[in-house]
Amino acid sequence: MTDISAYADLDLDRTRRRGYPEAVYCAGKTPGQVAGIAAAVREHPDVVTLFTRATAEHAEAVRAVLPDAFHDPSAALLAWPPAVPSAQGGRVVVVAAGTSDLPVAREALLTARYLGRRAELVVDVGVAGLHRVLSHLDLLRQARAVVVVAGMDGALPGVVAGLISAPVIAVPTSVGYGAAFEGLAALLTMLNACAPGVAVVNIDNGYGGGHLAAQIAAPPRPDATPHQRPPG
Amino acid sequence: MTDISAYADLDLDRTRRRGYPEAVYCAGKTPGQVAGIAAAVREHPDVVTLFTRATAEHAEAVRAVLPDAFHDPSAALLAWPPAVPSAQGGRVVVVAAGTSDLPVAREALLTARYLGRRAELVVDVGVAGLHRVLSHLDLLRQARAVVVVAGMDGALPGVVAGLISAPVIAVPTSVGYGAAFEGLAALLTMLNACAPGVAVVNIDNGYGGGHLAAQIAAPPRPDATPHQRPPG
Amino acid sequence: MTDISAYADLDLDRTRRRGYPEAVYCAGKTPGQVAGIAAAVREHPDVVTLFTRATAEHAEAVRAVLPDAFHDPSAALLAWPPAVPSAQGGRVVVVAAGTSDLPVAREALLTARYLGRRAELVVDVGVAGLHRVLSHLDLLRQARAVVVVAGMDGALPGVVAGLISAPVIAVPTSVGYGAAFEGLAALLTMLNACAPGVAVVNIDNGYGGGHLAAQIAAPPRPDATPHQRPPG
Amino acid sequence: MTDISAYADLDLDRTRRRGYPEAVYCAGKTPGQVAGIAAAVREHPDVVTLFTRATAEHAEAVRAVLPDAFHDPSAALLAWPPAVPSAQGGRVVVVAAGTSDLPVAREALLTARYLGRRAELVVDVGVAGLHRVLSHLDLLRQARAVVVVAGMDGALPGVVAGLISAPVIAVPTSVGYGAAFEGLAALLTMLNACAPGVAVVNIDNGYGGGHLAAQIAAPPRPDATPHQRPPG
Amino acid sequence: MTDISAYADLDLDRTRRRGYPEAVYCAGKTPGQVAGIAAAVREHPDVVTLFTRATAEHAEAVRAVLPDAFHDPSAALLAWPPAVPSAQGGRVVVVAAGTSDLPVAREALLTARYLGRRAELVVDVGVAGLHRVLSHLDLLRQARAVVVVAGMDGALPGVVAGLISAPVIAVPTSVGYGAAFEGLAALLTMLNACAPGVAVVNIDNGYGGGHLAAQIAAPPRPDATPHQRPPG
Amino acid sequence: MTDISAYADLDLDRTRRRGYPEAVYCAGKTPGQVAGIAAAVREHPDVVTLFTRATAEHAEAVRAVLPDAFHDPSAALLAWPPAVPSAQGGRVVVVAAGTSDLPVAREALLTARYLGRRAELVVDVGVAGLHRVLSHLDLLRQARAVVVVAGMDGALPGVVAGLISAPVIAVPTSVGYGAAFEGLAALLTMLNACAPGVAVVNIDNGYGGGHLAAQIAAPPRPDATPHQRPPG
Amino acid sequence: MTDISAYADLDLDRTRRRGYPEAVYCAGKTPGQVAGIAAAVREHPDVVTLFTRATAEHAEAVRAVLPDAFHDPSAALLAWPPAVPSAQGGRVVVVAAGTSDLPVAREALLTARYLGRRAELVVDVGVAGLHRVLSHLDLLRQARAVVVVAGMDGALPGVVAGLISAPVIAVPTSVGYGAAFEGLAALLTMLNACAPGVAVVNIDNGYGGGHLAAQIAAPPRPDATPHQRPPG
Amino acid sequence: MTDISAYADLDLDRTRRRGYPEAVYCAGKTPGQVAGIAAAVREHPDVVTLFTRATAEHAEAVRAVLPDAFHDPSAALLAWPPAVPSAQGGRVVVVAAGTSDLPVAREALLTARYLGRRAELVVDVGVAGLHRVLSHLDLLRQARAVVVVAGMDGALPGVVAGLISAPVIAVPTSVGYGAAFEGLAALLTMLNACAPGVAVVNIDNGYGGGHLAAQIAAPPRPDATPHQRPPG
Repeated sequence: MTDISAYADLDLDRTRRRGYPEAVYCAGKTPGQVAGIAAAVREHPDVVTLFTRATAEHAEAVRAVLPDAFHDPSAALLAWPPAVPSAQGGRVVVVAAGTSDLPVAREALLTARYLGRRAELVVDVGVAGLHRVLSHLDLLRQARAVVVVAGMDGALPGVVAGLISAPVIAVPTSVGYGAAFEGLAALLTMLNACAPGVAVVNIDNGYGGGHLAAQIAAPPRPDATPHQRPPG
Repeated sequence: MTDISAYADLDLDRTRRRGYPEAVYCAGKTPGQVAGIAAAVREHPDVVTLFTRATAEHAEAVRAVLPDAFHDPSAALLAWPPAVPSAQGGRVVVVAAGTSDLPVAREALLTARYLGRRAELVVDVGVAGLHRVLSHLDLLRQARAVVVVAGMDGALPGVVAGLISAPVIAVPTSVGYGAAFEGLAALLTMLNACAPGVAVVNIDNGYGGGHLAAQIAAPPRPDATPHQRPPG
Repeated sequence: MTDISAYADLDLDRTRRRGYPEAVYCAGKTPGQVAGIAAAVREHPDVVTLFTRATAEHAEAVRAVLPDAFHDPSAALLAWPPAVPSAQGGRVVVVAAGTSDLPVAREALLTARYLGRRAELVVDVGVAGLHRVLSHLDLLRQARAVVVVAGMDGALPGVVAGLISAPVIAVPTSVGYGAAFEGLAALLTMLNACAPGVAVVNIDNGYGGGHLAAQIAAPPRPDATPHQRPPG
Repeated sequence: MTDISAYADLDLDRTRRRGYPEAVYCAGKTPGQVAGIAAAVREHPDVVTLFTRATAEHAEAVRAVLPDAFHDPSAALLAWPPAVPSAQGGRVVVVAAGTSDLPVAREALLTARYLGRRAELVVDVGVAGLHRVLSHLDLLRQARAVVVVAGMDGALPGVVAGLISAPVIAVPTSVGYGAAFEGLAALLTMLNACAPGVAVVNIDNGYGGGHLAAQIAAPPRPDATPHQRPPG
Repeated sequence: MTDISAYADLDLDRTRRRGYPEAVYCAGKTPGQVAGIAAAVREHPDVVTLFTRATAEHAEAVRAVLPDAFHDPSAALLAWPPAVPSAQGGRVVVVAAGTSDLPVAREALLTARYLGRRAELVVDVGVAGLHRVLSHLDLLRQARAVVVVAGMDGALPGVVAGLISAPVIAVPTSVGYGAAFEGLAALLTMLNACAPGVAVVNIDNGYGGGHLAAQIAAPPRPDATPHQRPPG
Repeated sequence: MTDISAYADLDLDRTRRRGYPEAVYCAGKTPGQVAGIAAAVREHPDVVTLFTRATAEHAEAVRAVLPDAFHDPSAALLAWPPAVPSAQGGRVVVVAAGTSDLPVAREALLTARYLGRRAELVVDVGVAGLHRVLSHLDLLRQARAVVVVAGMDGALPGVVAGLISAPVIAVPTSVGYGAAFEGLAALLTMLNACAPGVAVVNIDNGYGGGHLAAQIAAPPRPDATPHQRPPG
Repeated sequence: MTDISAYADLDLDRTRRRGYPEAVYCAGKTPGQVAGIAAAVREHPDVVTLFTRATAEHAEAVRAVLPDAFHDPSAALLAWPPAVPSAQGGRVVVVAAGTSDLPVAREALLTARYLGRRAELVVDVGVAGLHRVLSHLDLLRQARAVVVVAGMDGALPGVVAGLISAPVIAVPTSVGYGAAFEGLAALLTMLNACAPGVAVVNIDNGYGGGHLAAQIAAPPRPDATPHQRPPG
Repeated sequence: MTDISAYADLDLDRTRRRGYPEAVYCAGKTPGQVAGIAAAVREHPDVVTLFTRATAEHAEAVRAVLPDAFHDPSAALLAWPPAVPSAQGGRVVVVAAGTSDLPVAREALLTARYLGRRAELVVDVGVAGLHRVLSHLDLLRQARAVVVVAGMDGALPGVVAGLISAPVIAVPTSVGYGAAFEGLAALLTMLNACAPGVAVVNIDNGYGGGHLAAQIAAPPRPDATPHQRPPG
């Protein structure tokens, strides 16, 4: 009944092996195609599936098949099964430079949580008012990975990276106008951050930012034998 | 003897009316043309003339005609007559984000001084170490105009503008590599600065930055009758 | 009741210290978020707050909370409290190259007035008819700062700067088509203006242009002791 | 002896039919190839041939074969036979915005002359000093076609077009730095000129500008029967 | 009653001096502003006025005031008074590479006619079928100026210029998709045309192309004394 | 002795399986690295190896190890063993728009020959003189694949594709200046060619163009059972 | 009755000579123009005509005239006469990297079929899961030409080309967001593919990709006498 | 003696607090300035200092002051004190797509080692030959962070990320030509990687890539209490 082979090739087995949720990128898919994929997903409740960049029509199509799916409209994200996994590994902190960056920041936050991390959100701390960043230093310094979401000048990730020792994943957003060029300005700023410790994902890619942060903050795998910090 | 009409049309009278030095942009001119202009300039010692973007060859050509001309090779600038005018108006502070931004910053500094302003230089205060900016806050807050020179991510002007009430003139530099795109990244960052109070000049245009700061910090003209701040 | 901490962190205290109105950038915020901020603003009638880039929906949300707010739909601007402060400092002149540049020019004009400057507007004086610019020379020469708003070729700021000694803040607009590239052509023209004394803000950023002009034309601060123009 | 068929296919017959000189674009050709072409040209003294963008090495190679060829090193141009044809048709005026634009302007000037037009050069009349343009209005208004050569902001062609009724051919140059982007800024400005009557050729293409102006100012062809301006 | 000074400064006197119609660029103006300008225009029936880039709303506003205005919706153009001037000077030929280029081509055609030229249109002669261009050679060779309108690869103007001796005004259009980049590809092609004799106006600027062609094909002005082609 | 594993991993076995020569891209490699690879190649005389983009230093390094290697300096290409394989499959024709495009065209030509195709070169047939293209139609129509190499406006591939039924591989070159943008203009033109049947490779990538043409013109593989054109 | 000469010049004779269907590019044409062309097409049932980039309105206009026309809405394609020609020549395989690339892939598939090739489609085999590509290797290696359709990173064509010896036609799509820049990222990736054997057509140009593949896989023409692979 | 305050403001204390080496970016600094900084560094042998992007002249200047400094000319890197710290934390694997990417890859490798990680290098594993990547899967899967360095199409990081569960830091390089646009193509590819788990640093920024990988693979800090993976 859920023959989707004409337009998609789900690889839930690969997902199981790699250990992270499957993600269905809804943009460019018809609601009918998304519904078909949702039906295939329903057969595999042991794997968490995220539906990203889902419009209201996409969401309706998913929930017609998976009525209990979690849905955050501002982040354009659905998840099924809806339960957030219990948290493992280090802490992820997501920082949104401005109110308009919130949708992308929430996509990062929820992705990190559905990948099994404890994740928190800090809002409206742009560099125009440094004291606002500085007031969150304690929290930032407890993070194993920090996602910084910013549009316009995109200056915040470099400033944060200079203050902490954890890696910073910078997510440029298309917030802004004119010479912001739909996020290009923020993207270039972040790629040229003076402080080391900043890596960048695609413009508005909250999913990618949250995913990477969750990978960084993952608990040690048993099969990997890390060198230990020597005593002292 | 100094017939330069085949390639230039000096307008020293306009310079006198407008009240600022004449500037000779040397790039793209032959040393011979620059020497011819220098000879014409020699007839008008009452006007300060700046030679900008002067290579060593240009400088040699100028000093062959005007041996006492001031020359700062790092800023690629000459001035004649060499004496710096006595300072008038408000203070100008020039801030260089990194050591590599120094040539452009010095061009701004010297331009502001030859336009008659008291001007000071602060060096190596990039946003990767915020405490360095913060340690100069007192000086920055005394300025009537601040010129911030930065390459790479170009984030410093927006941070400075958020800390002071004077206008910030941002000068992007071509310092950096890769996605710095010869200063484009810094330029876009500055145009998108989240803090109001930032305006931008061309990449590496220390002359333009210093000139504008000097205009901003100019003493009130007698013919202009500004509204006064009311008592209290 | 006005708990906005989930999406914004108003810093009216900083506004007080820096001496300029707080600005709320509405683009990218929901009307609900803007209404929440307006409610927070209502508690602080001693600070002028500007709402910029406000759509009709944003404006409705603001006026539901602050019914007496000033609203200029063409400039997409609201202000509260609505009274314009009494004018201090030097005069600001805003010049619009064409009729289509008016919305941005009005945003600059109103911003300068709400920052406490006397500000006037000159309309439709593009370089295709030089006599139109020249007919306003007297007014332009009385300004402490001139804002020039232009789209298409963006040539006007350079022409104006060559005629006056006050600083020119150039605001490129997205007026035009084809190789105007949404304001990029005008932006580049302005950055390359041959006359010194031009600095540029973001495309369509009337708020930024008016803000900077107001800072430049600000009355001398008591704590700053400028050098005086010597007699003669 | 002059077998050049391995690398070029001269079409002097076509040149004769179309009525304009043949042009050999030297950039990218080896001096040996240029010499071979010069030898082929020598067989056809009834056709004027221009060698454009010729380096010193190219020029030496041409003059080894055609010792009496005309050579203007600043314009990187050679012509053979060297005699300028007697002038026909309307007048061409070439305007160079700055001294650094002279090489391109001279290429335009010489091209127009070798195509058989009376052509004159006006130098250093940038828009930063409008009175300089205005002082040449009489000459500009006598032209049948005006070539305006400008780098940096490229604003001059639009200003000139607003003052005259003849067509303006705009030649952007790579003069400038930073956001001039090797002539891109001037190119865009010229494409967006507010005054109608401006068309643009490639950056630094003095040859193209002069050629087009010469075509515009060509005398009426006997085979074309233009409509006559009615009496009165 | 027609006080438009708050948003426009019509300069019909300049139009009279320069000898060409006034043009009102409607894009970016409100219908109300356009109506106001139309009312001002109504006072001056001795001057032809073109309204360019007029939407249906703009057109309705114009015709409410000037009911007999000529209107070509596909070219988005209105003219008043509606009568086409009697033709003078040389012939203008407008060539449209494809059917989709017709709106821009018609704007050029009508502009040339309202400037007083005999103008004809040739349609759908792209370079993919050379015989189609070649079949119009006779007409093309009778033109004093040719306007070539093309999108996509923009190759046609260079091909036409290689076939005729009259100047070619190339008008790139935004026809195409993907790497056509809204006309940028065609624009660059035209700027790099291998055949001399091509100059370019802005993307989709049929008005500019037709205007320039009309200037080129203008009858000799009595005050200009061209050199005559010698007998023989 | 030829341990190159620290910097390269030659895969001659894969080359054998795929049936085409191995290619060593020399740019960015030190002459020492290239020499090391040449020594490894020497062990495998049954596989043709091409060294592309080889400077004089690279060529010297190769020939120190493989003294009999074929070397075409203008194409910056070496081949070893030097013998050209006997020709199989269909004919390849390489067309160079101008003399300056010859180095890239020769790289394509030689690559096609070393891949086992009969390949011929046609030179200097730009669209500015259509009769030159048309005079080669017979040869072009005999080709199984045509490589068209062109810089500047890049218009030739679209014209050729409209004349023949074989596929056209377009190779843009960096020949040109100004708005040619190092080959970008030609690249965009080719991507937007109006005639179907044009595909594009990287700027200056003669190797890629020749390789693809050779693949297209390859003889039928025995394991592939093509459908046959029915009789009649 | 079908006089379309005012806006189009169908060249069905050329189509017959070249041996491929005529294609009508509907974008930018009015439904009325498309209907007129359809009526002209109806007179020539011996030629297959494709209508590409047809909106629902275009399709309705075509089917009003040609009721039995084939229509694939997802590919925005119509064909008339509707019968697919019997397959000749080699096999074409079309590969779509993701579900969202399907519309473009189907346009390629149908074009190849209407040009007379056997063509098959493989879906959702992006490089993020290599085993999916590898599972189709047998089919890919039977193809005479492979069309690879991919958006986002556009990495798939290079991977496929490394696995097979047939030519790969890469079709970048505008699928993606942010720094995908409407297909520019995928386009650049494909132009820089490390494996030789990849050529690229315009973004979203499924028609061009399918057309080229069909040309490559065409049966040998009787007039061309290819060299035969020698026995062994 | 080592007064460098005129051009630099070393912050070794901050380095100590953050726990990573200080880095001196040499590009744009004079050898004299670098020597001055080296002298200041000499006072602080407890902090590792890296000198990046050091030309031969820079290296000579450093070693005149710090004769025992480690120097890798291909990576343009120096380190002092020269001893590599003992390895802690997880393993870092650096992958270079091609031989030409080696200098950047070595910069990443050495940076990771000087930050205290065990780091290994894999060379020449581009996607054109997938089996080469696949042959290193075991090593890649043992890494806590993988740095993938690639120019041209930049496709490798996305392929690697699809095969492992550790985060991938992608470093685009300027290797390539034409439409590689100095690394822009690779940068865009990486930002659009279809597989999640890829973040990008600046073009040629091996230092940044190695630094970030070292941060990711850092041993758990005692003050951070990560959630533990539950048993089973």
